[in-house]
Amino acid sequence: MSSIQKPLLKLYYDIGSPYSWVAFESLLRYEKMLNIQLELLPVSIGHIFKATKNIPNAMQMPQKANYFQKDLMLVGAYWGIPLQPSKDFKEEFVNNSTLNPPRFLTAVKLNAPEYLIKASREYWMKAWSRHEPFYGTDTIIEICKKLNIPEEKNLLETTQSADASNLLKERTNEVLKLGAFGLPWITLKRNISGNEEIFSFWGSDRLPIICNLLGKEFYGPLKENKI
Amino acid sequence: MSSIQKPLLKLYYDIGSPYSWVAFESLLRYEKMLNIQLELLPVSIGHIFKATKNIPNAMQMPQKANYFQKDLMLVGAYWGIPLQPSKDFKEEFVNNSTLNPPRFLTAVKLNAPEYLIKASREYWMKAWSRHEPFYGTDTIIEICKKLNIPEEKNLLETTQSADASNLLKERTNEVLKLGAFGLPWITLKRNISGNEEIFSFWGSDRLPIICNLLGKEFYGPLKENKI
Repeated sequence: MSSIQKPLLKLYYDIGSPYSWVAFESLLRYEKMLNIQLELLPVSIGHIFKATKNIPNAMQMPQKANYFQKDLMLVGAYWGIPLQPSKDFKEEFVNNSTLNPPRFLTAVKLNAPEYLIKASREYWMKAWSRHEPFYGTDTIIEICKKLNIPEEKNLLETTQSADASNLLKERTNEVLKLGAFGLPWITLKRNISGNEEIFSFWGSDRLPIICNLLGKEFYGPLKENKI
Repeated sequence: MSSIQKPLLKLYYDIGSPYSWVAFESLLRYEKMLNIQLELLPVSIGHIFKATKNIPNAMQMPQKANYFQKDLMLVGAYWGIPLQPSKDFKEEFVNNSTLNPPRFLTAVKLNAPEYLIKASREYWMKAWSRHEPFYGTDTIIEICKKLNIPEEKNLLETTQSADASNLLKERTNEVLKLGAFGLPWITLKRNISGNEEIFSFWGSDRLPIICNLLGKEFYGPLKENKI
């Protein structure tokens, strides 16, 4: 029996990127209907900004900072995601090293992949809904306890290991090579009559086009498909 | 007989902004179905960039320039708009004064509003589909002749008058006051139980959310509604 290869959709994301949360939830809701293979790949947004000399929207000019606060509320309400804009983006995100979350999520993907979705969501709830500190190792232990992830000590060790660090670097370099300058970054690989095509999308607002490329309808936020 | 006030949707646009073209066509296709009053307002993107110290995406970093070339093709194909990315954005747009098109469109809106849609589209075809020069007064005469706009001499005079110039400045300042830092800029004013609400949207990818706020479905590109 030959297996039919599904189109591969990769989502590169980081907890520090609120629109990554939107892409994450919307792709999970559409995954079955689009009949795709969805791969979730934690990367480091700090490293992407450094490598491309890009600057977060909130830090570019007051107009953008102000606009994106309101836009996040509208986008969150549309998708039914409890996004709350940051009151002090610089204090919460820029002044802190935010490498622990993607390192931990890389370790989870490596050693306990069945917890990746829930662990990512716990992080976003802290970082972009309740606006609690989320970058320390204490959050890792808290998330492990809350989700009953076994072997939390092992996971913490893996998080701090060269393996997780190298894998995170590798994946971040992979998305940089694809042309990324921000997150979320989505790639769609599809095969049409033996020809492989790769499309890249920045942001969370290209789902109607992605659906269209896959020959499917876009049905809006699909709140009933929440997982 | 009392008239029921329709929600007012304003589109602030300039020919130099390719995503403005997408917003323009998509809103025209959705206008009737959304049961809105649509107002098309030419403004100057050059002035917006200067006032906010914003920089066009294509000039910020090679990664963005490269990404937006591909994105324009995908977005254009999705909406059925013959967008072609610029081969040399700096040469075509940044090195030229692009004030004539919004001044002329302001004059058209003032004196021959029934030609505003077609005249805007002729400009976009030159600037973002065929990539011909579009900023000179010769283009104004060419568009008048092609569309059989009467009194082309008067229109050319109005284009160069203080009236059109001041009105353009006024509208550009209006959108700056609304928080704009780029184009297209869309505002939606709706009345819910006597309370007036205004929402602002930057870009051409918020139509599903706009439909949702108006209690309507988003039906994709609606190519059959081309006008």
